[in-house]
Amino acid sequence: MSHVPSKTTLGVVGGGQLGRMLGTAAAPLGVDLVVSDPTPDAPAAPVVRDQVVGGFDDEAAVRALADRADLLTFEIELADPDVLERVSEATGTPVHPRPETLRLIQDKLVQKRRMREAGVPVPAFRAVDSAAELETALADLGYPAMLKARKGGYDGRGNVPVESPEDVSEAFATVDGPAMVEAFVPYDRELAVIGCVGDEERDSFPVTETVHEAEILRATVSPARTTDTVLERARAVATDVLSVLSGRGVYGIELFECDGDILFNEVAPRPHNSGHWTIEGCHTSQFEQHLRAVLGLPLGATDRRAPTASANLLGDCETRRTARLAGVAAALSRDRLAVHWYGKREVYQLRKMGHVTLVGDRDPTALLSAAREAVADLRV
Amino acid sequence: MSHVPSKTTLGVVGGGQLGRMLGTAAAPLGVDLVVSDPTPDAPAAPVVRDQVVGGFDDEAAVRALADRADLLTFEIELADPDVLERVSEATGTPVHPRPETLRLIQDKLVQKRRMREAGVPVPAFRAVDSAAELETALADLGYPAMLKARKGGYDGRGNVPVESPEDVSEAFATVDGPAMVEAFVPYDRELAVIGCVGDEERDSFPVTETVHEAEILRATVSPARTTDTVLERARAVATDVLSVLSGRGVYGIELFECDGDILFNEVAPRPHNSGHWTIEGCHTSQFEQHLRAVLGLPLGATDRRAPTASANLLGDCETRRTARLAGVAAALSRDRLAVHWYGKREVYQLRKMGHVTLVGDRDPTALLSAAREAVADLRV
Repeated sequence: MSHVPSKTTLGVVGGGQLGRMLGTAAAPLGVDLVVSDPTPDAPAAPVVRDQVVGGFDDEAAVRALADRADLLTFEIELADPDVLERVSEATGTPVHPRPETLRLIQDKLVQKRRMREAGVPVPAFRAVDSAAELETALADLGYPAMLKARKGGYDGRGNVPVESPEDVSEAFATVDGPAMVEAFVPYDRELAVIGCVGDEERDSFPVTETVHEAEILRATVSPARTTDTVLERARAVATDVLSVLSGRGVYGIELFECDGDILFNEVAPRPHNSGHWTIEGCHTSQFEQHLRAVLGLPLGATDRRAPTASANLLGDCETRRTARLAGVAAALSRDRLAVHWYGKREVYQLRKMGHVTLVGDRDPTALLSAAREAVADLRV
Repeated sequence: MSHVPSKTTLGVVGGGQLGRMLGTAAAPLGVDLVVSDPTPDAPAAPVVRDQVVGGFDDEAAVRALADRADLLTFEIELADPDVLERVSEATGTPVHPRPETLRLIQDKLVQKRRMREAGVPVPAFRAVDSAAELETALADLGYPAMLKARKGGYDGRGNVPVESPEDVSEAFATVDGPAMVEAFVPYDRELAVIGCVGDEERDSFPVTETVHEAEILRATVSPARTTDTVLERARAVATDVLSVLSGRGVYGIELFECDGDILFNEVAPRPHNSGHWTIEGCHTSQFEQHLRAVLGLPLGATDRRAPTASANLLGDCETRRTARLAGVAAALSRDRLAVHWYGKREVYQLRKMGHVTLVGDRDPTALLSAAREAVADLRV
């Protein structure tokens, strides 16, 4: 069933860089995007039909989207599943992925329990609602471990490492609410898979190796520098992860490779930073794929055109200030390098401001280094 | 010298499909586009910062662009070089390509004379300002021949074939004004080259074979199905063509291959239909390249990723009516096929409504057929 009979408008909760990249992917398909975002002139605004200014959980804003759109989706987990459900029912506008998927992944404890029930391998974890419970849990799981707020964390926010019993009370005070604690995973590398759920088909993009520092994604390379057995296992785990989720769309699935096996870390029900390289590196980008999936169109080919690395451009400044991009000419003097600027008006420490992608028939290690060197040419 | 210190706005005269594809290429570079076009909600409108509604030669509209933009360019030859020159001088806003280039190519007779003077091989031609002059010229050039209005023609409009002396007076009456007549070229195939002029560098995309019917481009394939010698010659002629033109940007150069040699047909000072395949088929698209060139950024790699064909979706209806796109799901069920819909509200006979691109490691003949089959899935 195709949802593009003539002129389709897709309403997107969130208008950040993911909305911006969805916007540029939508035009060729003849799909108009309307986004909602609390920041006026959000990154997506210049490349979409219109922006509604409103919070991610603002029911009037979501209703305004639904009144103009044939379908709703979201590009940020801070969207409110209850609001989406109510608006969808009131207006008859389908939402993909389904609001229940969003609800499921918003609570990290529920997410992990459901994955474990589905046979997805996960690190050992416990629910902890107090410092005392955390101490008890860690007596069992051992140190070090990662304490995670059940809700609201992203880009490492809400995650607190607990190195020893002395850290317990301060760690819990930082999170200060319903949490879970997870055994430290002595991983060899981090991997990610963009899973794709279409109308009656499923697929996934080639496995990506991700490099995090201080829990924020810095760079990716595909193919991942691992064995074929691990790659196969990663895709198989991704398939099991998708079986837990409902609704069409792409899903960013983060994994640990540990002693030749795979452990599930977390999933985002939307295009994901670990899949930005697909714009240049694959025959279909994750953004086009998300649109095709959500609209019920056939999924596109996910195969990799050539080895591809990406590197993030992060804010590096003490105080929040107006963003100005420099160094583009230097970066673009490198062959097969693409610059992606997100158009954010302000920069602050570690804010994701853009990324570069480098394609080439080279060794992944060399490609990854070259992408990281190239992004260093850019200054915000 | 880079013209992207922080936030750049580019003013584009014309907001058709070329403006739309420039819009999607501009976002990653952090460049905002403002376009002017007489049709409200022109194809580019949903993917650019703003549209000024005004004719291509409307000085107030071009001035409104210049007041908001750091640089001006155009995506249609109907832009007015005098207006661009005046606005540029009054506001200090550079224009690329240069208005004099636009003026030069707008008059097909002047264009051909200048190319001939520069050593570019051209078909035999004569200036003709009356039916009597046309008859005299054809006594010399022979029949059949092509009568061309010096100004205003595109997509075959303004071109009239003259088969025999009996056609002369009707042919001239159709053109009815300053014209040129050109000896018929018994070409083996038509080729096109997208030439690129950057700040201090020049390049060209791989030679494309173009298929016209009734003088309208229907399909392209690259590599062109010809010899390496001819390909080399085509790129050399393209280089000579660029030497006649001034200003940065990409140029669509149309050529005839005739008995193993190349004859120049015409040049458009903008991205060109014969280069749409570069979006999927090359490491840099002609649209990104135009932006990079105009902004004085380093040119991107022009090499071909894989054999690529494109086919145009043309209006096929007796009367002008509202456009509705159907058949997208069928078209997209083909692997590595991309759909590009231009978002035009109305369709009429032979109007360019969109195109498809097909990439694959296949014989160019098979690829071309498959692209033409795929576009037949789409209905407007």
